[in-house]
Amino acid sequence: MKKISKRALDIEMSGIRKFFQAAKPDSVNMTLGQPDFDTPQHVKDAAIRAIVEGKTGYTFNAGLPELREALSDKFKNENSLDYNPNQIIVTAGAGEALFIAIQALVESGDRVLITDPGFVSYEACVRLAQGTPDFVPLKKDLHINHEIMEEKLPRSKLLILNSPSNPTGTVESPDSIRSIVESAMDAGVTILADEVYEHIIYDAVHASPGTFGEDVITVNAASKTYAMTGWRLGFLAGPSEYMEQCLKVHQYCQTCATSISQYAGLAAYTGDQSCVGKMCDEYRARRDILVSGLKQMNINIPVPEGAFYVFAPLGKENTEKIMEAGVIVVPGDAFGKAGYEYARFSYATSQENIRLALERMQPIFED
Amino acid sequence: MKKISKRALDIEMSGIRKFFQAAKPDSVNMTLGQPDFDTPQHVKDAAIRAIVEGKTGYTFNAGLPELREALSDKFKNENSLDYNPNQIIVTAGAGEALFIAIQALVESGDRVLITDPGFVSYEACVRLAQGTPDFVPLKKDLHINHEIMEEKLPRSKLLILNSPSNPTGTVESPDSIRSIVESAMDAGVTILADEVYEHIIYDAVHASPGTFGEDVITVNAASKTYAMTGWRLGFLAGPSEYMEQCLKVHQYCQTCATSISQYAGLAAYTGDQSCVGKMCDEYRARRDILVSGLKQMNINIPVPEGAFYVFAPLGKENTEKIMEAGVIVVPGDAFGKAGYEYARFSYATSQENIRLALERMQPIFED
Repeated sequence: MKKISKRALDIEMSGIRKFFQAAKPDSVNMTLGQPDFDTPQHVKDAAIRAIVEGKTGYTFNAGLPELREALSDKFKNENSLDYNPNQIIVTAGAGEALFIAIQALVESGDRVLITDPGFVSYEACVRLAQGTPDFVPLKKDLHINHEIMEEKLPRSKLLILNSPSNPTGTVESPDSIRSIVESAMDAGVTILADEVYEHIIYDAVHASPGTFGEDVITVNAASKTYAMTGWRLGFLAGPSEYMEQCLKVHQYCQTCATSISQYAGLAAYTGDQSCVGKMCDEYRARRDILVSGLKQMNINIPVPEGAFYVFAPLGKENTEKIMEAGVIVVPGDAFGKAGYEYARFSYATSQENIRLALERMQPIFED
Repeated sequence: MKKISKRALDIEMSGIRKFFQAAKPDSVNMTLGQPDFDTPQHVKDAAIRAIVEGKTGYTFNAGLPELREALSDKFKNENSLDYNPNQIIVTAGAGEALFIAIQALVESGDRVLITDPGFVSYEACVRLAQGTPDFVPLKKDLHINHEIMEEKLPRSKLLILNSPSNPTGTVESPDSIRSIVESAMDAGVTILADEVYEHIIYDAVHASPGTFGEDVITVNAASKTYAMTGWRLGFLAGPSEYMEQCLKVHQYCQTCATSISQYAGLAAYTGDQSCVGKMCDEYRARRDILVSGLKQMNINIPVPEGAFYVFAPLGKENTEKIMEAGVIVVPGDAFGKAGYEYARFSYATSQENIRLALERMQPIFED
């Protein structure tokens, strides 16, 4: 029964969960890549209404027309992006959106540029499409190294950009984004922009790569913005000729996103947006507690401007020590070789938990 | 911007929907591949409870442990199949289950046996994995042609079996299934068994291929059994070494099935099953009306024993005429070349609609 395909053998489970599973029972879990907030009430109400009204059958493959309209408006108003509704496909989260875009564009052997460290799915999706991931290291300040990226562009087909970034929390400035997009367009490289953390941002401005060039596919999701990870609701938008091909892959791997989640998403994107700012304020307060606590321990980190992660150069030994002490983080090499000396802290957890984690860490860094 | 991958170019949209979209506004729609019943109330209640209780975050990639337990019991009790919970992956419907199994097993150039006619997704999923579909024609009675299948087995890696069948409504007898499985096992060919219509069956017995051999992956879903298409809830089960690889693909294309749908599915599989029999009784009554109406028009069809389709050899011209007359069906060649002279009627619509359709057809077949 040895009939496994090469594309399956070529990838690994992300394995982030295992660090928590191996931990002591009273550990503080700082590994999670999802908001710890409940989905906003008006969003839940819309979903319940859809269930009660029996809106539980297939939708169009690409999603509910009214949701695609709402997303087209969202792109216009929030991102200055001009996508008409039929350039938008509603997916099972950003995960599926990335997957189908890469399936539709990447041919066996094609090179795809990914930052190292970077989000775990990118490399796996590229390998599933039998493409070749090529890594762009980050600078010491965890920003993209433009020089190395530009050097690699001519040999590449696709570049995946993720700002605000998981795992680093870094936000690339609009100037940096513009420069990257221009270089990619000059080299004929398509950009796949993962913007799921766009609304979790502090003292920085989010710029959508699609505003600086045409050969860009934009991926986003309700997951982080509206605390809706389990609903599996995301979307992608881009040039029609790409979307036509992405839709084929989507039709066969998903049929359509869960109808109920689509109605929930419609309420999220068209309803009161104050929940988004409230959650962001709380993330900021948590970040400040965590960052100042780490600085007091002389852990030198660039202050992250987005997402809900701190990527800290603790060293392998100290990372193991804090896990021992009951603070569970994800070792940085889960996000690429260049993350070896780092650990990712997620502060999508309560201020109490963050303070407790800092208390437990302190003795380790006093030595 | 011509950067589309071969695997995307190699497939087509299923296009079933276009026949209805092109139809006159008052046409009777007999194209739909989904139950027209509402999801049972106790299932909806469970989903609403999950939303209210905030069970809206990620679940394990493979699904809720309690749901996988319930599915393991379902396999034991309904199918005499012995899958332990960690051999089961919860997916976004049977569609995703088929997709990930084919991604995990099929290598570029591998031959996959599919019946012609057969369900539209199979060929597309095989092409997306860059495999080569190889077609086994059906006999005149719409059953699988064992001789041709056996002849092709030695050159194949995978065989997709779908009984009760979409589009034909045919149910393969337990003897036929056993014989097919034994031949496949002898030839070293894995079977992918799509059993989504198992509970929509009349005067026939459903046999799971997995009861006759070990190298079998079983796919099923809540979609048809519990009128839950829009919830996107399916699952697959099989030998652990396959499931391990399937889970990797699932992790990156889906993360997890919608959490709310998983709680709904738990209620469906563990709750009162009387809804299943009630829906089946109604399908049977509709089938009888449709089949006897068609026979009165001298349309000679084998009486379908399962699913909610009648696959009738109307001829191309008559198919066009009934569409003109306001009865929208899917031309048989949407399901493969061998379906050219056929039309698929779905009777997942009211008895009134079926009678109206027959009335409209009558003048055409009186000539």
